[in-house]
Amino acid sequence: MNIKQTVIDNQLQELFKKGSFGIEKEGLRTTGQGNLALSLHPSSFGSRKHHPYIQTDFSESQLELVTPPQNTLKEQYKWLEALHDVVNRTIDPEEFVWPFSMPSRLPDEKDIPIIKVDDRKEIEYREQLAEKYGKKKQMISGVHYNFSFSYDFIDELASIAETPEKLTSWSNDLYLKMSRNYLRYQWLLTYLFGASPVSDDTFSSEDSRQYYRSIRNSPLGYHNSFSNKVSYQGIEEYARDIEHLVEEGTLIEEREYYGSARLRGKGKAVRNLISNGTRYVEFRSFDLNPFSRLGFSYEQSLFTHLFLMTMVWMDKESTTEDIRTGAEMNEHTALEDPFEFSRFKEEGQFLLNMMKETLNALHLSSEYDAVLETAHMLLDNPEQTLSARIVKELENGRSFIDYGIKLGQQYKEVSFEKPFLVKGFTEMEMSTQLLLFDALKLGIETELLDSHDQFLKLTYGDKTEYVRNGNMTSKDTYISHWIMANKTVTKKILKTYGYRVPHGEEFASIEDAMNAYSLFDRKAIVVKPKSTNYGLGISIFKHPASYEAYSEAVRLAFEEDGQILVEDYIEGTEYRFVVIDDNVEAVLLRQPANVVGDGRQTIEQLIKKKNTHPYRGIKHRAPLEKIKMGELERLMLKEQGYTFDSIPAEGERVLLRENSNISTGGDSIDMTDDMDESYKKLAVEMAKALEVKVTGLDLIIPDITRPSTEDKPGYVVIEANFNPAMHMHAFVQKGKGRNLTRKVIDMLFPSIDLS
Amino acid sequence: MNIKQTVIDNQLQELFKKGSFGIEKEGLRTTGQGNLALSLHPSSFGSRKHHPYIQTDFSESQLELVTPPQNTLKEQYKWLEALHDVVNRTIDPEEFVWPFSMPSRLPDEKDIPIIKVDDRKEIEYREQLAEKYGKKKQMISGVHYNFSFSYDFIDELASIAETPEKLTSWSNDLYLKMSRNYLRYQWLLTYLFGASPVSDDTFSSEDSRQYYRSIRNSPLGYHNSFSNKVSYQGIEEYARDIEHLVEEGTLIEEREYYGSARLRGKGKAVRNLISNGTRYVEFRSFDLNPFSRLGFSYEQSLFTHLFLMTMVWMDKESTTEDIRTGAEMNEHTALEDPFEFSRFKEEGQFLLNMMKETLNALHLSSEYDAVLETAHMLLDNPEQTLSARIVKELENGRSFIDYGIKLGQQYKEVSFEKPFLVKGFTEMEMSTQLLLFDALKLGIETELLDSHDQFLKLTYGDKTEYVRNGNMTSKDTYISHWIMANKTVTKKILKTYGYRVPHGEEFASIEDAMNAYSLFDRKAIVVKPKSTNYGLGISIFKHPASYEAYSEAVRLAFEEDGQILVEDYIEGTEYRFVVIDDNVEAVLLRQPANVVGDGRQTIEQLIKKKNTHPYRGIKHRAPLEKIKMGELERLMLKEQGYTFDSIPAEGERVLLRENSNISTGGDSIDMTDDMDESYKKLAVEMAKALEVKVTGLDLIIPDITRPSTEDKPGYVVIEANFNPAMHMHAFVQKGKGRNLTRKVIDMLFPSIDLS
Repeated sequence: MNIKQTVIDNQLQELFKKGSFGIEKEGLRTTGQGNLALSLHPSSFGSRKHHPYIQTDFSESQLELVTPPQNTLKEQYKWLEALHDVVNRTIDPEEFVWPFSMPSRLPDEKDIPIIKVDDRKEIEYREQLAEKYGKKKQMISGVHYNFSFSYDFIDELASIAETPEKLTSWSNDLYLKMSRNYLRYQWLLTYLFGASPVSDDTFSSEDSRQYYRSIRNSPLGYHNSFSNKVSYQGIEEYARDIEHLVEEGTLIEEREYYGSARLRGKGKAVRNLISNGTRYVEFRSFDLNPFSRLGFSYEQSLFTHLFLMTMVWMDKESTTEDIRTGAEMNEHTALEDPFEFSRFKEEGQFLLNMMKETLNALHLSSEYDAVLETAHMLLDNPEQTLSARIVKELENGRSFIDYGIKLGQQYKEVSFEKPFLVKGFTEMEMSTQLLLFDALKLGIETELLDSHDQFLKLTYGDKTEYVRNGNMTSKDTYISHWIMANKTVTKKILKTYGYRVPHGEEFASIEDAMNAYSLFDRKAIVVKPKSTNYGLGISIFKHPASYEAYSEAVRLAFEEDGQILVEDYIEGTEYRFVVIDDNVEAVLLRQPANVVGDGRQTIEQLIKKKNTHPYRGIKHRAPLEKIKMGELERLMLKEQGYTFDSIPAEGERVLLRENSNISTGGDSIDMTDDMDESYKKLAVEMAKALEVKVTGLDLIIPDITRPSTEDKPGYVVIEANFNPAMHMHAFVQKGKGRNLTRKVIDMLFPSIDLS
Repeated sequence: MNIKQTVIDNQLQELFKKGSFGIEKEGLRTTGQGNLALSLHPSSFGSRKHHPYIQTDFSESQLELVTPPQNTLKEQYKWLEALHDVVNRTIDPEEFVWPFSMPSRLPDEKDIPIIKVDDRKEIEYREQLAEKYGKKKQMISGVHYNFSFSYDFIDELASIAETPEKLTSWSNDLYLKMSRNYLRYQWLLTYLFGASPVSDDTFSSEDSRQYYRSIRNSPLGYHNSFSNKVSYQGIEEYARDIEHLVEEGTLIEEREYYGSARLRGKGKAVRNLISNGTRYVEFRSFDLNPFSRLGFSYEQSLFTHLFLMTMVWMDKESTTEDIRTGAEMNEHTALEDPFEFSRFKEEGQFLLNMMKETLNALHLSSEYDAVLETAHMLLDNPEQTLSARIVKELENGRSFIDYGIKLGQQYKEVSFEKPFLVKGFTEMEMSTQLLLFDALKLGIETELLDSHDQFLKLTYGDKTEYVRNGNMTSKDTYISHWIMANKTVTKKILKTYGYRVPHGEEFASIEDAMNAYSLFDRKAIVVKPKSTNYGLGISIFKHPASYEAYSEAVRLAFEEDGQILVEDYIEGTEYRFVVIDDNVEAVLLRQPANVVGDGRQTIEQLIKKKNTHPYRGIKHRAPLEKIKMGELERLMLKEQGYTFDSIPAEGERVLLRENSNISTGGDSIDMTDDMDESYKKLAVEMAKALEVKVTGLDLIIPDITRPSTEDKPGYVVIEANFNPAMHMHAFVQKGKGRNLTRKVIDMLFPSIDLS
């Protein structure tokens, strides 16, 4: 088949330019001193047996991050970002991930730890590799770029091909052509992206002061040179040649075939490609880019995608001879001095022009244009290439190890700047980010079914669970949501079971509510809409409301809902109890926005200082909100005889708001361990009465030190909230943070294997 | 205690005037010829053992409708309305419920069927009663009025009383006073509401042409005259006297004590009143009002409430002697000629004035004023009383039996005018009304937790289930709702499981959607918002859309949601499959609004005729919507070369709309039995894949006669709807109606006992 012609004839350009993208990125855990970490792979990553995202490669210290295939490069990078946050926040605080392909300071060959797993065969295989190549060479890390065209494109090909056999043959043709031309032209990627000019002395005893473009891509690096023994001219030849290398003992197993382009299909055996076709190709020649926090920049990924499309779009069909030439050119490029022009500059320009043609033919976005421009510039300016830039840094007298420590630690710190967010997924709600974090860490296969809707699909072993908004799951019933959404129904049920709820009346019209004023004119009351979940439209009267004030409160509440409640106001402190799977997992006290004086600073200064806390942000992008200095705060101060310029006495607490919402600058104080057990027991029982597994119960308790008893109940329950916020318990102003998302995972997957 | 003083001192007037109201209404099932029906109590009412609402009294033919206690008279009447609809629509089509207290045409004494239940003791008791009073007297029916003050009022009393013992004693004092004064003054109710002036010859052999106010309240009627043997001066005396009557054999059991006022407490034994207090009082002296469809009018209920409050509010404390006097006065009144003035008219006026004082003191609504006025009028105009009005009808030469047939059948027909609604609860959604209907019929205890929110609590035996909107239950999971609410997620899951879904793209901004126009410019497509459930904002392009048309469709879709889908348009007919509990319970075809010509009538005439169908209504208050004659319909006709005045040929179908929504006048055609099993099987499997128990799946099927196979699937699934409408399947334009609400009940209560 002629793929280009097929695409044009069938107007498939839009589908052709889509793809499915995955990245595998290796990196060595390294101590603060730059030594290879000899510690075990962290057990908090769960079992390596299933972990789809965080693996170890040859060595116990060699992390391998694997992004699941994504439909866009943007998505691919979201995953890579997130996995870095997970790894950085989970590994030993004394360690970081080495940013170079060439290893950090290695111990003696014998002390380099091979992967520690239960599987004897797996260990034997690594031991054989160690013997064959030497352990040190196995420690060289890199990036694998997994690419396929989109499912939609393949679907269209299927409908054109008509028979499954033809589709299989077409997909093999397509990816073989891509691979052949890649092998012919990969030297350009090595020129542009080569980033292993140098190694530490512990890696190699030769103390040559020679610099290279890419040790890793050169014979000095770790690669087997069996590529030339494998034909890419047809799928049967490809499979037969790899099988032959295993039979004759050149390769231990098929997977030892480390050609720069590896065709992957269904199942592990290479033979399956013949019957089922190629699903994607793994391109393996990329060095870690130390200037990118993620080891491979988004721009590199864009360039590679365009490069791969061009390898298919071009008319050229590389022969076996061409491929051999390509291997030589790549090796030559790898060994070039970083500051030299490429020996193949002219072909490079020709290639870039061909990429430009692809770009134009497919109407690719301007992002692709930009990376092409950069590549042109780099061909003309070798001193700007990655390898040259590294060398320049080292020529300033800094050692390779010191430079790696600096970069690696700096990259790690980025993951701690906002520990309540997961980079890549910061557009999602915080609770969903935290759940995602835990899922990725534990190796639960995670699919973002709909990130706008906070919709995750979690799979562990055979079991799949769907989660929305962090804790809406299959463990709760459909009706439980609506029970909690309706405050009247919640109260009726709790009351039926004998729990104390505030006495109240429901009204469906302003008129009815106003006619009932005489029921409330001598009481402290709360007027609130029946079904909103966010504290809107609520008025509290701690002293009986005048007719006018009541009328205004009724009007406000009806703005939020078609029905309102007028309830007795209950004196006491409100606590949020979060019940998950029949346990109280957190108790939180929320306090109105406030500052505490020190006798020196003004209120404004105190607010500004308090607002520097890393947990404080704006517009719900942080667990706590910054205290505002607006009209409401000014009035609140005025009532207390203050202005923003007043200087409160040492230890004096000045309130800036009356309401205790976190969203208006309030404080969160974890009280889980301080709460009397009797109240926790009640909260669990109430959740059971409502038949819910996840709920946020708001209890008014005048004195938490006095246990609640049947005769003298010490509480009134005012609300049961569905989908309670979880992040506010994880990152608190005061007290111990509570990881509630992990409890949700434990509820969904009780048999999860942390061994 | 002085209750009036306590209320005034504690400003409890608002609570005092609330109450808890129940009605028990007996009525004889009667044949179209006016004979007592000898058929069995309908088995479709389920088991009488548990039925809280529809019972039989002495005779198998004597229905007893029982409303659960309600907080307002309005609610009480809703229940009474609903129970009448349930009974009228469920009993044999040849039967109706006799509207008079005095029986319809009775067979020989020996042929009157005693209640048929399994419980031997129960049957024996009835047999003893039959022997003691005669079966015929047992057939006299009436109304019992159950009243207590509100829980809130009792709660307040409790807090004033401070000890539970004191509260018990207060509640007994309160209800004893009410009962004593009621017994003293009940003659007024007999004067006003007496409605058994005459009986059929089969009831009594004496052929006197004498008329009475109330045979039922007289010695000619059925009542035991042991009231005088029971003291109402104290709770211990009351209990002791009734127990004594049983001990000496005057009463068979305590429940045989049929005093006009019976105190009821916790449990059946009268002794419990002493320790636990009175909960409510049953007032038993009311005749069926044949002029009210429900046997007792709302105005009667209002008057009775005011009367009872006055019995407490008045200073008078009736002595045993007073009660005896009251009994005599009541008997005298019952035997008075309906057209005579009351012998006690003066006392009557005094009582009405006292009721007016109560009304004023409590600021009761004007409704109460109106019924007082009527009572004054009736004291002055005896010929306007119920008993006199009945006699007047009969003096026109109509027989008692014929008059009963006329009224009874007329009342029954009312329940069939809108068989898709349940009177009393017509403000709720139709699906909820139908569910309520089935629940009431089957004797499932039903509480309207929130009628605004369509929220029911259903209890059968030990099991409680909550239902919202007719089919949102505990059988579905919390997450399943959100899966179905999100069309993208639904499609992803169905696709993962291998089902055919339309290919499509999701966009989160107009810009993104417009940039992708080239993906769709040669296709038939559907542009729709991602998550609305009601067909809003959907544009269908059966031929490729121009850039402008696409742009407009995108804009419309974004008006409904923040994300939109652009999907391939699939040619074929759309069917709605409703799956409940792993079965396809209905398949519906919806057709656009249309009329079929007859060669004579204009389109306007045809529309008007079609709109007379009883299932057609407006604004979702009927299963089908009336066809409109608006601008859209006019344009649609114009496109076909018609106006509203055109006369289509016989058999020609003229479309008035393009869309097939029922809400724009479309037809509903049941296809459940016509659909090939392969599609039903698929629908069930899809529901299982989505892990939902109740869903409405929309499938496009070009040819339902061709089975779907794995090789040649004959469908595409386009949506899975949560909370599918059920009423539209129950009442269809064409085909067989499907009772889906009953299937929901079967799912919730699989062990329900219909024996």
